[in-house]
Amino acid sequence: MTQDIDQDDDNPRCASGRARLYVEEALFVGAPLVLDKDQTHYLANVLRMGPGAHVLLFNGRDGEWAAEISEISRKSAHLIVTVQTRNFEPLPDIWLLFAPVKKARLDFIAQKATEMGASLIQPVITRRTIVSRVKDARLAANVVEAAEQCGLVAVPQVREAEKLGTILDRWSKENPDRLILFCDEAAAPGGALGHLAAIAKSHPRGGPFALLIGPEGGFDDEERAKLLKREDTRAISLGPRIMRADTAAIAALAAVQLMLGDW
Amino acid sequence: MTQDIDQDDDNPRCASGRARLYVEEALFVGAPLVLDKDQTHYLANVLRMGPGAHVLLFNGRDGEWAAEISEISRKSAHLIVTVQTRNFEPLPDIWLLFAPVKKARLDFIAQKATEMGASLIQPVITRRTIVSRVKDARLAANVVEAAEQCGLVAVPQVREAEKLGTILDRWSKENPDRLILFCDEAAAPGGALGHLAAIAKSHPRGGPFALLIGPEGGFDDEERAKLLKREDTRAISLGPRIMRADTAAIAALAAVQLMLGDW
Repeated sequence: MTQDIDQDDDNPRCASGRARLYVEEALFVGAPLVLDKDQTHYLANVLRMGPGAHVLLFNGRDGEWAAEISEISRKSAHLIVTVQTRNFEPLPDIWLLFAPVKKARLDFIAQKATEMGASLIQPVITRRTIVSRVKDARLAANVVEAAEQCGLVAVPQVREAEKLGTILDRWSKENPDRLILFCDEAAAPGGALGHLAAIAKSHPRGGPFALLIGPEGGFDDEERAKLLKREDTRAISLGPRIMRADTAAIAALAAVQLMLGDW
Repeated sequence: MTQDIDQDDDNPRCASGRARLYVEEALFVGAPLVLDKDQTHYLANVLRMGPGAHVLLFNGRDGEWAAEISEISRKSAHLIVTVQTRNFEPLPDIWLLFAPVKKARLDFIAQKATEMGASLIQPVITRRTIVSRVKDARLAANVVEAAEQCGLVAVPQVREAEKLGTILDRWSKENPDRLILFCDEAAAPGGALGHLAAIAKSHPRGGPFALLIGPEGGFDDEERAKLLKREDTRAISLGPRIMRADTAAIAALAAVQLMLGDW
């Protein structure tokens, strides 16, 4: 994946200075790989790598592997996988369902949620959601970029945007054991720790959970009433101050990872 | 404060659609105020407000007040404070000391830390810090913008960047009771909740605390050894995955607000 999403980014890589790429293919000793044009451009022109150079690869399933470039042209790079460098480490089973916001703030949520270890991210269209179209490819690219940069071996699944009502109607059939953690702006403030501690007593650390965050302005009264009535849903508050939707998403994810995940 | 910092921002205001401005002056019934050119431009040209219109004002000390525009020209706006709309709500005494990163990510830390309720933010130059100059005015503008947009009545203090060694040398004299919460990338992972719970047992909720976050790549060995030796410092971990420096800063602040602050 090329680095064209976060244009402000001239920080060093989180994990190391080495090239680290996400691929779809299975990784094992001797596996032959052909990289696409974008990844080839990144290796050849940005990092100026030639035959014999090594890169790190991961696919979200098989851990991390080193591979050697055998041939590289303008259009494609041929690699041979040589050795496993890290085992696979699964993520806690915590989904992030969030009302999409615009452009940079959406990129931000995807990147931060990936770094913080969400296992799935899905935009949810609520009544007060202003953004109606979400570019799935851009969302996925942000996820992959964050995973590449931060040395992740597991990558969150990205789902297409859906309406809140559609998701909730199917929930008990598709996700019978997954508790919805509903960030309720109208909940009494100051109770976030108590809310999460109570859930930690009755539910296993590591999930399955789904954190649900509304848009700027929150859920409307009818949406809120429906959520509060559900047996598979717990409301959590997030402190006494109003936060923007993107801030609330990552703050809630940090709180949930701390109390119910693997921090 | 004008809206030129977050250029991607066309979301609605967090709190309401009303104009909400930070001012330096004392606020009380009948107080006369003259706004500067930037704020006047925002009211006159962006929001198209004229005489008789009302705005909300706050100064970080006196709560929130409504004021009526009595005169407005291209260069200045004259206002009279009419009524208090909210009481002052102090922030928990939690400072955020962080190694500065570049441009957009620095803006981001300042905005998010403000929304999350840090009471003071200060860039700290460590050995591995790549950014050597921090624009104080830009940092302050980001703080004020976030406070305006999110309906805050308290505003974090912004301190100039200083070297880590300088800050620590003066610490026991200047901040004898303030515990340093040192985000230690080299700490054993998975212990964040335990670390924070132990501090919560021995220290009062609400502070004084100072959260200290290093740069990409973390603190160097000597800095880390010095921090771990201090009696006024506790190391905390932040989960098993590496996060970028800006992500770590806000994730840690969320965790600390939850366990030791007012969430």
